[in-house]
Amino acid sequence: MDVPISATLAANEEIARRRRCGQHIVNLAFGEAGLPVHPALRDALARATGDNAYGPVAGSVALREAAAGYWARRGISADPRLVVCGPGSKALLYGLLLSLGGDIVLPRPSWVSYAAQAELIGVRPIMIAPPPGEGGVPDPERMATAVAAARAQGRTVTSLLVTLPDNPTGRLARPETVRRIAELARELDLTIISDEIYRDLVYDPAAEFLSPADVAPERTVITTGLSKNLALGGWRIGVARLPEPDRREGRLPNGPDLRERLLAVASEIWSSPAAPVQHAAAYAFGEPAELVQRIADSRRLHGIVARAVAERFAKAGARVDDPQGGFYLYPEMTDFTGSAELASVLLERHGVGVLPGTAFGDAPETPRVRVATSQLYGESDEQRTAALNAEDPLGLPWIAASLGHLEEALSRL
Amino acid sequence: MDVPISATLAANEEIARRRRCGQHIVNLAFGEAGLPVHPALRDALARATGDNAYGPVAGSVALREAAAGYWARRGISADPRLVVCGPGSKALLYGLLLSLGGDIVLPRPSWVSYAAQAELIGVRPIMIAPPPGEGGVPDPERMATAVAAARAQGRTVTSLLVTLPDNPTGRLARPETVRRIAELARELDLTIISDEIYRDLVYDPAAEFLSPADVAPERTVITTGLSKNLALGGWRIGVARLPEPDRREGRLPNGPDLRERLLAVASEIWSSPAAPVQHAAAYAFGEPAELVQRIADSRRLHGIVARAVAERFAKAGARVDDPQGGFYLYPEMTDFTGSAELASVLLERHGVGVLPGTAFGDAPETPRVRVATSQLYGESDEQRTAALNAEDPLGLPWIAASLGHLEEALSRL
Repeated sequence: MDVPISATLAANEEIARRRRCGQHIVNLAFGEAGLPVHPALRDALARATGDNAYGPVAGSVALREAAAGYWARRGISADPRLVVCGPGSKALLYGLLLSLGGDIVLPRPSWVSYAAQAELIGVRPIMIAPPPGEGGVPDPERMATAVAAARAQGRTVTSLLVTLPDNPTGRLARPETVRRIAELARELDLTIISDEIYRDLVYDPAAEFLSPADVAPERTVITTGLSKNLALGGWRIGVARLPEPDRREGRLPNGPDLRERLLAVASEIWSSPAAPVQHAAAYAFGEPAELVQRIADSRRLHGIVARAVAERFAKAGARVDDPQGGFYLYPEMTDFTGSAELASVLLERHGVGVLPGTAFGDAPETPRVRVATSQLYGESDEQRTAALNAEDPLGLPWIAASLGHLEEALSRL
Repeated sequence: MDVPISATLAANEEIARRRRCGQHIVNLAFGEAGLPVHPALRDALARATGDNAYGPVAGSVALREAAAGYWARRGISADPRLVVCGPGSKALLYGLLLSLGGDIVLPRPSWVSYAAQAELIGVRPIMIAPPPGEGGVPDPERMATAVAAARAQGRTVTSLLVTLPDNPTGRLARPETVRRIAELARELDLTIISDEIYRDLVYDPAAEFLSPADVAPERTVITTGLSKNLALGGWRIGVARLPEPDRREGRLPNGPDLRERLLAVASEIWSSPAAPVQHAAAYAFGEPAELVQRIADSRRLHGIVARAVAERFAKAGARVDDPQGGFYLYPEMTDFTGSAELASVLLERHGVGVLPGTAFGDAPETPRVRVATSQLYGESDEQRTAALNAEDPLGLPWIAASLGHLEEALSRL
């Protein structure tokens, strides 16, 4: 087993080191939502401090029922018995890869941890670029060709993954692309993992969200969590909705068996998510009005700031698609020889921290970097709350200053 | 990859099923401390509900410094930079196995998850019985022979594991055995993993605790957590103390490198333990007087009840070593053809749930079962608090009733 050093980890340590040395850095490298905990969530956690039981490996009944309700309100059938909770959707994704076995099709670019997890397990990812202008989804026809070729070579390909909307591109796959991917998954007998952790943060009113679970519920796993929509990254809570039996055919393709395998893995690695956090998460997945409002405010802020940063990059000559959801951009600057050079010049000469596209699976010569715009909201809970509530967040002095720093840095590239 | 179904999981689901059907079960199958959260710990968690940052993969500085202090007070050198925290020591053990690579020597019997984790990763455990009357440590000379034989067959053996004191036997390895194991680890170039999660619960005044880290600090990893001494299993927090560089030789055998590999694994699977829980854990590892007292009270209760249950088994003709720490017994009843039969007769005919020795690596024909005595303290926080504070816990009606049920069941075997 080869243990890769996380690119995010390395970049953040480097940024922290430079800050300790007094360098002023606008850190746009880290994918944290950058907002405070809603007071109602703090209260929910504070009420649960007495719960010290290990509890079920799959998560508490209350949390699984709340998560099933969350999906039901989005038109997706979910049986609480087929919901599995974990300490972050990342842990669940690892458990799913281990449980499914075989190789996986990933979009290129895609979130750093998918390929890193595959490498830990000895799974070889097949990375396929999205259709032009899209992100988070492998091009369907090229995927079908690649899977056939891999199988002809004797490889076992069992699954494909999509990220809706996408990290790093900030784009949402079009419904017709999702529909075609789901159809091909059926034809090729692939399980679909749909990472929908940014689903509630789609701010482009023209973007239409279709989950592969809407098309092929019998072979789609959805993972999500509260790290992005409610900024609870440090609380470590994720949930997975496993495929449901296809009642028309009376078959159980991989639902119950996949659940059993995932629980066996979960039981030997993490046991269960922290019990007090599960209580707060059950409250959150119930979507009370105050949290729905908080998510709406967050979505608005993410959209305003991501668009403003995209404009700065476009003005400086970058090729960048309009962001549609989440808090990322993935600009390309063709004057550079590759993403490492671009990221390094931005950090070393201009004090702007971003992640090189190589971390997301891009070829070294592709000069794209990922920009996490949520890092601009402020350094304190006070600043971040002000950003959330501001009519014009771009007018807040600390956000305006960072945007100014960025604009100047980009103009000098 | 073959995913094993956890024996604990299966046993507990079976017990839950029978209880739902109205059967009265004394459940001695589950290794939970069975005590409430100390109010000061509840307060510490409630104060930390605002922390939603991902934080360092290794854990917060405060938690790592507190854990290092915990070890320093026990005479063990620990550098906070070489402490890694995780969501339970179980997750850390998995990460360590993955990071170390190669095969591992385990005691037979030993905790269910060591071998199950090894199987998930494709590591083949070499299971060696302890010296007579001991537990949690492979017999040193037999280990040396087995490692030499495995290496002669071309296998890579990189580590050995000890549990001090032991789950399932409740025994503590003697200092001379630990010393010899550590010497052989040096000779054979093995990393030692010392699982000391029950260390604070040694209640036998004659038992002398020696950690392999006292003997070979340069090649010993210690793992521990708060699940057992402070009954925080459901909070999911563990810490590992990695080997320190051998300053005399100026070498860095596996300390920094192992840390880097473990952090890479941690970063791709669980990111970090839940941030609010880390705050409470930092407070706990600081060992304030009220928690030291709570642990002393717990230790006393565990000792009284474990000894009382051991007496019941001995009276019924079982061979059972005096328990020395933790909350387990591992009796052998030679009238049975194996542990599955023994466990099944106890559950089905007499309503007593235990785990068969096969779950701990015993051969099927060895008629031993693990008995978790902490399950007797009560069903509610009120009963459990009363047990903790009772001058004579065995006289409490619910404990007396369960002991009576057990005694009658054993007399009928």
